[in-house]
Amino acid sequence: MLPLPGSMADILAFLADLPGPDQAALQKAQAREPQLTKPPGALGRLEEISAWMAAWQGQHPARLETPRCVVFAGNHGVAARGVSAFPAEVTAQMVANFQNGGAAINQLCKAFGAELQVQALDLDHPTQDFSQEAAMDEAQFVEAFSKGMRSLQEGTDLLAVGEMGIANTTSAAAVAHALFGGEASDWTGPGTGVAGTALTHKAMVVGEAVAFHKPGISDPIDALRRLGGRELAAMAGAVLAARLQRVPVLLDGYVATAAAAPLHVLHPQALDHCLVAHASAEPAHRALCAKLGKAPLLDLGLRLGEASGAALAIGIVKAALACHNGMATFAEAMVSGKDV
Amino acid sequence: MLPLPGSMADILAFLADLPGPDQAALQKAQAREPQLTKPPGALGRLEEISAWMAAWQGQHPARLETPRCVVFAGNHGVAARGVSAFPAEVTAQMVANFQNGGAAINQLCKAFGAELQVQALDLDHPTQDFSQEAAMDEAQFVEAFSKGMRSLQEGTDLLAVGEMGIANTTSAAAVAHALFGGEASDWTGPGTGVAGTALTHKAMVVGEAVAFHKPGISDPIDALRRLGGRELAAMAGAVLAARLQRVPVLLDGYVATAAAAPLHVLHPQALDHCLVAHASAEPAHRALCAKLGKAPLLDLGLRLGEASGAALAIGIVKAALACHNGMATFAEAMVSGKDV
Repeated sequence: MLPLPGSMADILAFLADLPGPDQAALQKAQAREPQLTKPPGALGRLEEISAWMAAWQGQHPARLETPRCVVFAGNHGVAARGVSAFPAEVTAQMVANFQNGGAAINQLCKAFGAELQVQALDLDHPTQDFSQEAAMDEAQFVEAFSKGMRSLQEGTDLLAVGEMGIANTTSAAAVAHALFGGEASDWTGPGTGVAGTALTHKAMVVGEAVAFHKPGISDPIDALRRLGGRELAAMAGAVLAARLQRVPVLLDGYVATAAAAPLHVLHPQALDHCLVAHASAEPAHRALCAKLGKAPLLDLGLRLGEASGAALAIGIVKAALACHNGMATFAEAMVSGKDV
Repeated sequence: MLPLPGSMADILAFLADLPGPDQAALQKAQAREPQLTKPPGALGRLEEISAWMAAWQGQHPARLETPRCVVFAGNHGVAARGVSAFPAEVTAQMVANFQNGGAAINQLCKAFGAELQVQALDLDHPTQDFSQEAAMDEAQFVEAFSKGMRSLQEGTDLLAVGEMGIANTTSAAAVAHALFGGEASDWTGPGTGVAGTALTHKAMVVGEAVAFHKPGISDPIDALRRLGGRELAAMAGAVLAARLQRVPVLLDGYVATAAAAPLHVLHPQALDHCLVAHASAEPAHRALCAKLGKAPLLDLGLRLGEASGAALAIGIVKAALACHNGMATFAEAMVSGKDV
């Protein structure tokens, strides 16, 4: 059974005692790879992925039979500040669209054989407007974080994590700005499509909010409570649960990466079981990935959220395992090795 | 029935009269895209891909039910010059490995539901050493090109094109250098793993061969005859046949792109039905893609050939069509549009 936090202190305690990679499984992957019928390194990041899957599943060969995708949805008080190109009711409408199978993420999960779970987090009660006060109190934050932890279903062998929430790139920008400094404008982008003076205004809201909260932020998880949203808290919880249960994670785009970033700031190895699936077209995502030491797998110009980039990358992980687990060795295939 | 060339002049004549994109299908795709439940442009290159598939299949919705992958294999006289890290007999050994299901491309085709066809082109008779004479005479070239054209099976809705051939990155480098100038070293890379003085030697062989042939090259297709190999000629043929039969093409890595490049140099629109699937770790691939005006879809550090990058990208095309064809519209889902 997964332990659940009763307080923010419990979350910090979990993070202080994380399991590492399974060295035996990793070594088995590393021993097999050079025997496969290809020049050494010729499969590039597919080789990295198959080793990573073995290390974090704790088994070799690693498996991909039950990939799951979870999309957390939340509403944000800060939406009232006019930071999004879409009205706040779109969050609930899109959740209905997910449930009816009509969104991009439904098609992507179907295409790659992933089960989709949608968690709408108290949409009728947006978080507080974080430009005025903390987005969540401790109880609200711990509840959302715990929902994220509990969303991880037994038997999941790869977890794709994403979100939906009108105004949540504003929240992500604020979290990133609070954690990594710089200027608010460095971390603020168009989201669903704000531009010009609306984008300047969005950056101003982010900057003022971070300046307002900064003196009171006690640790990176507290930054997530003050500036995040329920779906960001839940994504952080899902990422932590996956680590505790030996499930590798694909992080989606800017908001998912920002939600996981506090774990990294607390413990530099806390996201070693995660890959960033896709480099979002949201401009600050690259800088955020660099802060986490992560190179996104894909770069196809997506800026949708909904775990769409993470779901796309399931296909890449599938390909990596298919090669590592299924290829013949030089000995089996009687292929000559490299000339000496 | 596909017309087959009897001479190199016939190939030039085919290229002078290529069908264009289907404007009606393209317009249908462009009309549907903004109605789908996502911010405009939020699916990035997936949107480009679904429109491209409709335009070049000549139907909307585009389909992906029968993707096929073809790997052409050839042996090269220039291998005797010590330009590869692997001995020449590996070409035939790897063809056997493909036929036995043990190679990377077998696993990738299985993972993405693509049928694999392997065409071994007269492996017992390597092309002539192009550092001494033309790799193929006209009859040999036209035969290989025609085999490539005939490899396209009816009902293929997406073609992934790749190759296997010890020493063929040397051939690709020579073709690129002949077509696009610069220095031989600009176009010469490690291939399966040559480095240091062996790499310098490889570039020298490329440079000398191109200098030797350059005065006699009559057109870009003639460059491919003199400096290419049977698998390069066949890939060019397959790409042309796909254009004539309305089949979109995924080009694999450096060698496949070099094989198709002469078509582009002759007619700037000749490769509009092709996407470059993956940016090879072979360093010159990026420069070659830039010459063709193509941005590779994936960048995962592969440098294997075998159509491995092209097969990986089948999953991306599948995802693009799944979204475009399967998503709900704003009206169907009753989702609010962008705020004005």
